[in-house]
Amino acid sequence: MTQKYVYFFGGKKAEGKAEMRNLLGGKGANLAEMVNIGIPVPAGFTITTEVCIGYYDNNKQWPAGLEGQIKEAIGKVEAVMGSKFGDPKNPLLLSVRSGARVSMPGMMDTVLNLGLNDTTIKGLTEISGDERFAYDSYRRFIQMYGDVVRGVDHDFFEEIIEAKKKEKGVELDTELDANDWKDVVVKFKALYKEKTGDDFPEDPFEQLKGSINAVFESWYNPRAIRYRELNDIPHNWGTAVNVQTMVFGNMGVHPATGKGSGTGVAFTRDPATGENVFYGEYLMNAQGEDVVAGIRTPLPISSLEEEMPEIYEELEAIRHKLEEHYREMQDVEFTIQRGKLYMLQTRSGKRTAGAAVRIAVEMVKEGLIDKETAITRVDPAQLDQLLHPTIDPNTKAKVLGTGLPASPGAAVGRVVYSAQDAEAWRARGEHVVLVRTETSPDDIGGMDAAQGILTTRGGMTSHAAVVARGMGKPCVAGLESAQIRYQDKTITFEDGTVAKEGDWLTLNGTTGEVLLDKADLIEPELTGDFAIIEEWADSIRTLKIRTNADTPHDAEVARNFGAEGIGLCRTEHMFFAPDRIGVVQQMILADNVETRKKALAKLLPMQKGDFVGILKAMQGLPVTIRLLDPPLHEFLPHTDKDIEALAQAMGLSKKAVEEKVDSLREMNPMLGHRGCRLGITYPEIYDMQVQAVFEAACELVKQGLNVIPEVMIPLIGTVKELEILRKNAVKVAEDVISKAGVKLEYHVGTMIEIPRACLLADKIAKVADFFSFGTNDLTQMGFGYSRDDAGKFLAAYLKEGILEKDPFQTLDQEGIGQLVELGVDRGRKAKPELGLGVCGEHGGDPASVVFFHRVGLDYVSCSPYRVPIARLAAAQAQVKFPR
Amino acid sequence: MTQKYVYFFGGKKAEGKAEMRNLLGGKGANLAEMVNIGIPVPAGFTITTEVCIGYYDNNKQWPAGLEGQIKEAIGKVEAVMGSKFGDPKNPLLLSVRSGARVSMPGMMDTVLNLGLNDTTIKGLTEISGDERFAYDSYRRFIQMYGDVVRGVDHDFFEEIIEAKKKEKGVELDTELDANDWKDVVVKFKALYKEKTGDDFPEDPFEQLKGSINAVFESWYNPRAIRYRELNDIPHNWGTAVNVQTMVFGNMGVHPATGKGSGTGVAFTRDPATGENVFYGEYLMNAQGEDVVAGIRTPLPISSLEEEMPEIYEELEAIRHKLEEHYREMQDVEFTIQRGKLYMLQTRSGKRTAGAAVRIAVEMVKEGLIDKETAITRVDPAQLDQLLHPTIDPNTKAKVLGTGLPASPGAAVGRVVYSAQDAEAWRARGEHVVLVRTETSPDDIGGMDAAQGILTTRGGMTSHAAVVARGMGKPCVAGLESAQIRYQDKTITFEDGTVAKEGDWLTLNGTTGEVLLDKADLIEPELTGDFAIIEEWADSIRTLKIRTNADTPHDAEVARNFGAEGIGLCRTEHMFFAPDRIGVVQQMILADNVETRKKALAKLLPMQKGDFVGILKAMQGLPVTIRLLDPPLHEFLPHTDKDIEALAQAMGLSKKAVEEKVDSLREMNPMLGHRGCRLGITYPEIYDMQVQAVFEAACELVKQGLNVIPEVMIPLIGTVKELEILRKNAVKVAEDVISKAGVKLEYHVGTMIEIPRACLLADKIAKVADFFSFGTNDLTQMGFGYSRDDAGKFLAAYLKEGILEKDPFQTLDQEGIGQLVELGVDRGRKAKPELGLGVCGEHGGDPASVVFFHRVGLDYVSCSPYRVPIARLAAAQAQVKFPR
Repeated sequence: MTQKYVYFFGGKKAEGKAEMRNLLGGKGANLAEMVNIGIPVPAGFTITTEVCIGYYDNNKQWPAGLEGQIKEAIGKVEAVMGSKFGDPKNPLLLSVRSGARVSMPGMMDTVLNLGLNDTTIKGLTEISGDERFAYDSYRRFIQMYGDVVRGVDHDFFEEIIEAKKKEKGVELDTELDANDWKDVVVKFKALYKEKTGDDFPEDPFEQLKGSINAVFESWYNPRAIRYRELNDIPHNWGTAVNVQTMVFGNMGVHPATGKGSGTGVAFTRDPATGENVFYGEYLMNAQGEDVVAGIRTPLPISSLEEEMPEIYEELEAIRHKLEEHYREMQDVEFTIQRGKLYMLQTRSGKRTAGAAVRIAVEMVKEGLIDKETAITRVDPAQLDQLLHPTIDPNTKAKVLGTGLPASPGAAVGRVVYSAQDAEAWRARGEHVVLVRTETSPDDIGGMDAAQGILTTRGGMTSHAAVVARGMGKPCVAGLESAQIRYQDKTITFEDGTVAKEGDWLTLNGTTGEVLLDKADLIEPELTGDFAIIEEWADSIRTLKIRTNADTPHDAEVARNFGAEGIGLCRTEHMFFAPDRIGVVQQMILADNVETRKKALAKLLPMQKGDFVGILKAMQGLPVTIRLLDPPLHEFLPHTDKDIEALAQAMGLSKKAVEEKVDSLREMNPMLGHRGCRLGITYPEIYDMQVQAVFEAACELVKQGLNVIPEVMIPLIGTVKELEILRKNAVKVAEDVISKAGVKLEYHVGTMIEIPRACLLADKIAKVADFFSFGTNDLTQMGFGYSRDDAGKFLAAYLKEGILEKDPFQTLDQEGIGQLVELGVDRGRKAKPELGLGVCGEHGGDPASVVFFHRVGLDYVSCSPYRVPIARLAAAQAQVKFPR
Repeated sequence: MTQKYVYFFGGKKAEGKAEMRNLLGGKGANLAEMVNIGIPVPAGFTITTEVCIGYYDNNKQWPAGLEGQIKEAIGKVEAVMGSKFGDPKNPLLLSVRSGARVSMPGMMDTVLNLGLNDTTIKGLTEISGDERFAYDSYRRFIQMYGDVVRGVDHDFFEEIIEAKKKEKGVELDTELDANDWKDVVVKFKALYKEKTGDDFPEDPFEQLKGSINAVFESWYNPRAIRYRELNDIPHNWGTAVNVQTMVFGNMGVHPATGKGSGTGVAFTRDPATGENVFYGEYLMNAQGEDVVAGIRTPLPISSLEEEMPEIYEELEAIRHKLEEHYREMQDVEFTIQRGKLYMLQTRSGKRTAGAAVRIAVEMVKEGLIDKETAITRVDPAQLDQLLHPTIDPNTKAKVLGTGLPASPGAAVGRVVYSAQDAEAWRARGEHVVLVRTETSPDDIGGMDAAQGILTTRGGMTSHAAVVARGMGKPCVAGLESAQIRYQDKTITFEDGTVAKEGDWLTLNGTTGEVLLDKADLIEPELTGDFAIIEEWADSIRTLKIRTNADTPHDAEVARNFGAEGIGLCRTEHMFFAPDRIGVVQQMILADNVETRKKALAKLLPMQKGDFVGILKAMQGLPVTIRLLDPPLHEFLPHTDKDIEALAQAMGLSKKAVEEKVDSLREMNPMLGHRGCRLGITYPEIYDMQVQAVFEAACELVKQGLNVIPEVMIPLIGTVKELEILRKNAVKVAEDVISKAGVKLEYHVGTMIEIPRACLLADKIAKVADFFSFGTNDLTQMGFGYSRDDAGKFLAAYLKEGILEKDPFQTLDQEGIGQLVELGVDRGRKAKPELGLGVCGEHGGDPASVVFFHRVGLDYVSCSPYRVPIARLAAAQAQVKFPR
């Protein structure tokens, strides 16, 4: 039996269903699902994503049998719709649209009005009773097909229209009549012939074939590639193609019933706030693309209740039906053709993090979903938005105007007027706000580079608004009171204030306000629905969440965000403080142990003070303190001037300091004399640090506090290193404890961050109380990538699909993950009570958190602001992989 | 039952045997064995190495039961020897000596004449009938005990003797009489009391206990540690202690029989040449240490035949008995006490590489051993000596004198006069010849640093000679015709030539000649017995041996040494040639693909020429060519001056060149933009290289030669990298081949040198014809050690026993070896026909070769001069681990 490539939908029954998203794409699967639950959908069929993948694997050939299945499906569509493809009297017209597993709005190509030719145009004229509409549709088809399928530049077609308007002495397209469009059609075909060398295809099936291939081709257009990179969508998923009967929102009023046409998009709840209200926009007598493109500013959906009350009522009913069926907020597109409502799309609606949280909590209250489902409804990565500063309501910054609150949050940046500029400024480290009349898919890169986006046209569902919400970027849309002049690179607000390129603006995407200069910001808090979701997450998850914190302040912030301990306290950051670096340098420049010990003695009380603060902030919870890790040369100056200054301060010759700096210089510091290698060669440094930790801890215990210090030795690669250093540490610790005469629970463990350590984990476990995987260094050494240098090729690697994701952001489970698993399995086998955690960037990355949960770690540790993200990700991991 | 700590030997039966070397040490095991085969040995007992290990593990305490076992053993010794420990009439006197698994000559401490005190001295006087001898023995004991057990400096004792000689107006020790020594004994005891605060112990068992502990302590004295490091002996082996009845080679003539005393050392064959002759030296009326220390120049063993014919005959008989028993060349020590012969030691004799080869071959011919045994009798590492240049017999360099040919080979270096200077000069890169009157164990470091050693005193078994042979360093000993003046740092030869510090000398250790200045050298060849042993090795081994060669010359040398292909041809070395580097720099400075391709086009014929030469030299054998590996900045200048010169040559501004140099600079070049990452980002470079390889190969095929090029892609970390680069390479290769219209077998494979690649070996294997493990980089990344920087801590790591061996010299089997095994197992499982090899330093290291054999590689590849070493090591591996 031949493989099934084509899935029909229409009438009362579809061949596909919602669960077939991977095969049919999101749009196709949901069109089928809507048909199955009795919602009016124009009939059509979906060509599977497998055909797209095969298209690229197989030299862009169609598989045998595809053409036959398409023709068969067209037959079914004709039967349901009562028209015929290519029929001169009653022609079936089709749209051809992309539809990947996940929505990639505007990224790929579409062809509309397909099936028109010099014969069928007569039928359309007849049926619509509107020759102008028919020829306008025809010329639109030729223009789209020429552009999308054959690469004839859009602008060439526009020039012909401009010329025609000039000839007629009119300004707007709407002022051209049927004969004008007829003439334009002739000229378009001539243009097509000139540019492509071919006649415009009259055969509807040839038109269809070309359009389907064009959609496949658009999967690899540059902006689609870029979008997938930004959104972590694998390139090898491919897109499905949806071929569907055309319905026309621009067909005007029915001559008999007087019922009008229109088109709109809507969300079943407010995607910006999450409020449970019907939320959307529509345009009368327009095609769907007109709403999304933001060219005409549409009306709010509530106006439709007055304009077409029965249609509004039908829509409201569909809204409830969809939410009850999908138990999820939906984003729908609809078209009204002369009084008949058709649904063209439904999908899970994109929403801000705040909305996601509110919808999830409210749906639990409404009984639509349970808590386990609720916590999976919020993308942990998206929570980042809620953990950024917001604008202080009491800020004194001047409000220059208020647009639509299209995507919430605060953005502070310098104004730029093009996507290219946004990317270029960002590349040199600037924060920018991108200001555009409206945005288009070509602006994606610039939007990503900007802190926020401001447009002067378009609504809540305009391109800028939808994309910004998807990116979690603040956006103020449709600030119609302001004027942009691209030539001068200025925007003029209604009070006459002018912002030039490079001036500072603040956007409040939550209120729609635009403020002059940099506004005051306030720190984020964990309150309301957000707090509720996090509590639910806590009640579900089994993985503990700690934080990386080097100061009492960071420790407190993290604790407020729910951290259950410190997984990584880096002691070297304390060495860099201006009042200490001098003593640290003395210590390094010492040419014998005695002098070094003297300098260390000065550092001891300072380090002790640090630890008192941090242990206090975390009382009752474990605090893992990593002993000195970076190579010593990091603490020494490298410029001539600084070396001279240091020599003077130390009473040494410049040459002596230079020689020391030279002797410490390394070819590959990443793989050099650092971590526990320092502890072996300069045991007195680690001894001082351990003494400081335990003096601090004992002091707090005497004050009646409960503290749990954990000494972590970095960069262990051999068992002996840890044996020696553990012995030293325990000796110092026991000395301090017995002198203080207190009881104190403490642990001595190690980072597992060298590949060899993973392989020897069984032996290392015997001398460690805990392992903390240092996946940053493990990634560097396991891949052979220096984080400082990999930029030179990593971008190319991501672009060419050599790597699916940046391994420094998301753990490479295929390779580095194996090392972690080896370390976990061997370590725990040798010592079942071994503590297991991870510290470093990956601890706050949701996908990596799931992995760490799966392999059986006890905790992850991440930066304070990522603690709520990790809590939620851990809960989702437990739902998906119960343990 | 208590553990057995003490093994008795003596009379006709010993508790130990030769196989118990790990427990009893080499000396102890062989003393027992000699007793068992009926060779006369003074009775005694051995305390096991386990006691030494326990001594250090257990806070330097003796285990329960040890004391009792020692006392019991003393009882057995007393019974056999007919004397009693501490007996005033007929006292048993003991020696206490170290004895590790392998010989560490002179590295640890010894105490002789133990058991003497103010009571037993009377008995010794009585028995020997020689009061002078008795008190001389007594003072030697106090001196040795004081020095070794209690750390009283040797020099303090010598001062007392000097004072006594002055007082008596004599010059030599031999001129002092019994009463003088009596007086010295009293003064020695006073010195002992003054320096230690204790009375000299009168209790013989207390003396014994102190001496045993002193031997244990000496296991960790600095020179023993250093020796073990130089000789790859693990620190945790510990030493056994041999306690044995004293016999005296300095007891003079028997008053009744007139038979004399003496002592000597001998080898059952010539240890320098391997010739099957009795070879040794002796001194009449002397103690054993006198021979070894080289203070008096001894007589050749042949003189003994005249002096004491029955003893010589007995020795000859023992020589044959030992060789037939051990089937191995022996190194023995003997003492004649008033006409009675005692053997004090036998062990496998150290020998030069040349001797080892000759002995192995001749023993096969003599029917003593078979070929399998023969090839295990040569230490592959030692063969290095035979693969170094020797002095051209036709050299014009002037001969300054001829000493003893103590250790063969040629040494060319600048003269230094102390071990410290030798180390210091070597550290700054100089080649030195160490010139000393005689050497002592304290000179070990300096001897290791020198190219060769010249002494003016001492024989073929002097310290200098023995140690030099052990190290494989050329040595001329006992050049008595020359005078050294340490103060002036000069040596004056018999013709009046004076060599000052820093002057060049050449030593011919094979002939004993010392030559002025640098003599002409000739390259080594594989001939005679050496060729025979290698042929035997080839008939046994299953692992193939390839070579690392970048030039036709190296390829030829390696082929003559038996290489079976090239395992690593580095193409970048060709880029550094003076006539090419300019074009390479042009290529790198190109700011677009076109300019880069132009520069590459110039490189193409050059690279092709290289490959023609190498492929031709290796016709019929595979040649693995690695594509460009190092980061591009290695080819650019870094000093201001060089940058300016380059800018001028290229017609660029200095700033432009500087910017390029800056943009390519890396923090950790080891983990940066190199290897296949260059091939991905600059595909045109690899394309050029592959084109050059195949144009060269096709040209040779057309000439009727059989060539097998293998393209090797370095630094693969992901499957995709190899997919892309293999595809590119195959495309270029097929193009060239089809243009040439020839048939050509070729392979495309990859280096496995990144830890992640080992983990993904199953997937990578699917797109590779072969894997070549790059264990250098695997070690760097697996350990997190930069080879360029690790020097800062590696020495300390070896010293503290954190690492047993330098992992860059000998593969770390425990850790990095696991990665190799993973790679082999997964790779071969996914593709059974996958070729598997290793290139890099470890391929020529014998211990690593055994590992590579065991895990199932097809071949190792090493530098040309190590090919014979690898051949032999591979054969030994097959004998030990047949596959």
